Amino acid sequence: MKTTKKFVLPDHEIPMAWYNVLADLPALQPMLNPVTKEPLKPSELEPIFAKGLIEQEFSKERWIEIPEEVRTLYQIYRPSPLVRASGLEKALDTPARIYFKNESVSPVGSHKLNSALPQAYYNKIEGIKHLTTETGAGQWGSAISIAAKHFGLDIEVFMVRLSYDQKPHRKIVMQTYGGKVTPSPSNTTEAGRKFLAEHPNTPGSLGMAISEACERAVSQPDTRYTLGSVLNLVMLHQTIIGLEAERQFEMAQDYPDTIIGCFGGGSNFGGLSLPFLRHQLAGKKKFDFIAAESTGCPKLTKGEFRYDYGDTAGMTPLIPMYTLGCDYEPAAIHAGGLRYHGAGAIMSQLLKDKIIRAIDIDQHECFQVGELFAQCEGIIPAPESTHAIAATIREALKAKESGEEKVILFNLSGHGLLDLSAYEDFLNGKL
Amino acid sequence: MKTTKKFVLPDHEIPMAWYNVLADLPALQPMLNPVTKEPLKPSELEPIFAKGLIEQEFSKERWIEIPEEVRTLYQIYRPSPLVRASGLEKALDTPARIYFKNESVSPVGSHKLNSALPQAYYNKIEGIKHLTTETGAGQWGSAISIAAKHFGLDIEVFMVRLSYDQKPHRKIVMQTYGGKVTPSPSNTTEAGRKFLAEHPNTPGSLGMAISEACERAVSQPDTRYTLGSVLNLVMLHQTIIGLEAERQFEMAQDYPDTIIGCFGGGSNFGGLSLPFLRHQLAGKKKFDFIAAESTGCPKLTKGEFRYDYGDTAGMTPLIPMYTLGCDYEPAAIHAGGLRYHGAGAIMSQLLKDKIIRAIDIDQHECFQVGELFAQCEGIIPAPESTHAIAATIREALKAKESGEEKVILFNLSGHGLLDLSAYEDFLNGKL
Repeated sequence: MKTTKKFVLPDHEIPMAWYNVLADLPALQPMLNPVTKEPLKPSELEPIFAKGLIEQEFSKERWIEIPEEVRTLYQIYRPSPLVRASGLEKALDTPARIYFKNESVSPVGSHKLNSALPQAYYNKIEGIKHLTTETGAGQWGSAISIAAKHFGLDIEVFMVRLSYDQKPHRKIVMQTYGGKVTPSPSNTTEAGRKFLAEHPNTPGSLGMAISEACERAVSQPDTRYTLGSVLNLVMLHQTIIGLEAERQFEMAQDYPDTIIGCFGGGSNFGGLSLPFLRHQLAGKKKFDFIAAESTGCPKLTKGEFRYDYGDTAGMTPLIPMYTLGCDYEPAAIHAGGLRYHGAGAIMSQLLKDKIIRAIDIDQHECFQVGELFAQCEGIIPAPESTHAIAATIREALKAKESGEEKVILFNLSGHGLLDLSAYEDFLNGKL
Repeated sequence: MKTTKKFVLPDHEIPMAWYNVLADLPALQPMLNPVTKEPLKPSELEPIFAKGLIEQEFSKERWIEIPEEVRTLYQIYRPSPLVRASGLEKALDTPARIYFKNESVSPVGSHKLNSALPQAYYNKIEGIKHLTTETGAGQWGSAISIAAKHFGLDIEVFMVRLSYDQKPHRKIVMQTYGGKVTPSPSNTTEAGRKFLAEHPNTPGSLGMAISEACERAVSQPDTRYTLGSVLNLVMLHQTIIGLEAERQFEMAQDYPDTIIGCFGGGSNFGGLSLPFLRHQLAGKKKFDFIAAESTGCPKLTKGEFRYDYGDTAGMTPLIPMYTLGCDYEPAAIHAGGLRYHGAGAIMSQLLKDKIIRAIDIDQHECFQVGELFAQCEGIIPAPESTHAIAATIREALKAKESGEEKVILFNLSGHGLLDLSAYEDFLNGKL
C-alpha cells in the first residue's frame, strides 16, 4: 500500500448514485401503522414526508441516482478525504494500518449534510415551504438549517434541551443559517406540554423532540418533517461515505478488513459500512463491522429487538428495531447524537443476523482517546466520533498483541469544535 | 472559465518551495537593534529565534525549499481548496466572479498552521526544547500548540486577556493539544507585571503578549520564541497559499485581477498576494491588492510609516512599519487577530510604495457580511476573515454598478466556529 497521508478524489468522481442495501437483503419486517398496527402503506407517510423521500424509503432499486442539483452541492465539501492515521498508529505502536474517512470537513462539521441536502431538495421540488426536525447535539439541526436556507425553505428545529443548554453554540450556528430553534420539550406542541407536565425537569431526548417536530409538521400547512438518522432513506444518502472510501482505498492500494463507526441511530455507521457490506453479501469479501455505542444509551448491546415507536409520544410508525423502549431516558452524556433509544431497521436487522456486531463504550474512555487523537492527528473529534476512535484503538491494540496486520477503517463523523466545554470538563477531571 | 464549484490540487502538487519576495523587491530598510539603534545583525536574533528561521528572515533567495518533513505535514490539510463563491455571487447579483482560498479547512481552522509547522520544525532540528509565543484570537496559539506537540516540544502561549475571556474555547483547544496558556498581561514576567502596575484593568494586546513571550524565551534555557505574523519568514511560509491558488486558477481557466485579504500583521494577506505580486514586479500582470483592516485598529489607513517596536515593552528590534505606536490600545473588537498596532515590514513597504492599498471596515458591517456568507456558502467565517469578505462585497457591488467583469480572489483565512459568542452578540443586536 501507499504511505501517503491522505487520499483525495477529484470532484468528478463524486458517486453518481447512492447504494440501496435493501436490494441485496432479504425483505425487512415492515413498519407498522401506529394506530392499526397493520403494515404501513407508503401513502400513509405523506402528511409527514416528501413523496420523493417516501419512495426512497420503500425502494428496492440497487442504485438510486443522485439528483444533479444535490451532486453539485456535494461538491462544496465532497469527496471528503480518506486519511491514514499515521500519527495515531505511531502513538499506539501497532502493526495495524488505520484509516479514517474525514467527514468533519463539511461546512457544518459532520456527515449530516449528506442527507440534509437531498431531504431539503425533494421537499423543495414538491412545493413544500416549511420544514421541521429534531436535533440532539445539533449536528443534524445545523446541516438541515443550511440545506433549507439554500433551497429557500424555512425550518424549525426542536433541540433536545440538554444539548440546548450544554451546547449553546450549536444554536447560534443554526440561527446564523436562518433556522428557528426551539428547546424540547417545549410548550408549543401538545406532545411537549404533555412531557413537561409528566417530567417538568426532563433534559429531553431525541424521542421527545421527534414527537414535537412530527406534530408540528402534520398540524401546519405546507410543512413536512425531516430526520437525520434511523430511516432507510438516510442510510441510503449516507452511503456516499462508503462509496467514496472504496475508491480511495484503490488509490491507497490497500483494503480494510475492520469497519467501525459510532452509533446513535445508524446514519454514519451505515453510510460507511453498507457499500462494503454489498461485497460480503455477494460472497466476495468478509468484514468485521463494529458499531460503537455509548454505555449511556446502549440499545444495541442491552436493548431488545422488537417493534417500537421512533418517538416518545408514539406518533411515528412502529419500527422493527433494537430498542431500550421509546420512553427510555438516556444518561446526560456529551455525545448528544448517541442519545437515542432505538436503532434504524436496517442496522437492527443486520445486528440480529450477526452481520455486524456492537460494543458500548464509556464516556471517560472516549474523551481520553479524543485527546490522544487530537494530539496525534490535529483534529479534535466530536464526542460521538470518539466512540469510533475508542473502538478502533481497542482493535489496534489487539492487533499489536497478536502481531496481526489488520487494516481498520473508521468514520470520523464530525469535529468537536462546538463541544469544547465537554473537553474542558475532561481536562479538569470532571468526566 | 469553468463553472465548477471548487478546485482541488492533488497532494503531490503541494509546492516544493516557498516564494521569497525579497528577491524581487529593492532592499527594505533594515531592522534596528532596539538598544544601539544600529542595523540588526542576524546573530543578534539568536537568543530569540531558531537559526534556520533567522536565515530565512534575511534571505534574498527567490525560492526556499520546503523541508520534506514539513511538506508531508502540509498534506494533512493542504492543498486547500480554491472555491467559487457562486452562492455569494448570486445573492449579490454581480457580474464579478468571486473565488476564495479556503484556509479554514486546516485542523486548527485557519492558515496559521502553514507557518507553525516550519517554525516548530526548525526549532526541533536545532535541539530547542521549549517554545513560547503570543496569541490574539487564539488562531496562532492553536496552530503552534499542535505543531509543537507533533515535534515533541512544549509550548507556553501568552494569550491576550480580552481573547482569553471572550474566547475561552480557544484556550481549551490549545490545552487539548497540550499547550500551556497564560493570560497576558500576567504576573509571571517582568514586562507583564509592569503593564499590570500601569494599567490594572487592561484587556491586553498582542504587543504586550509579545513582550512577555520574548522575555520568557530569553530568560529560560533551551527556549525560543515563535511568531505568527509580521516577520518576513512568516510571509515566506504563507506564500504557499498564493502559490497553490495560482495553479488552481489554471484548473479554473480563469485569473484574478483583484486580490483581497484581511490584515492584522500581514500573514494571510501577504501569503495570498505575494506570489501573484511577483508577476506584477516582473511587469507581466497588474493587480488591485486590497488589505482590509479593522477600524478598531487602523494602522494601515491611519498609522504612520516609521521605525517602531514589534512589542509594547520595546524588547524587539525596531521595524520599519506602518504603526499606531507600540503602546496603542486597540478597540475591544471580536477580530482579535487584527488587534495589532503595526504591520510587517514587507507589507508596510508595499503600502508605502502604493503597490497595495488598504481600507478599514467597521465590525458591524463585517458581521453582517459574515452572516450573509454563512447563508450563501455554508461556512461561518472567522471575524477576521469577514473583513476580507466585506471588502470583496464592496468591490463586487462596484462591478455590478459599472457592469465590469471583475475576477476577485479573497482569502478565507479561517472559520468562526470558535467565535460564535460574537455572532450571538450580532444576532441579538448587540454589535
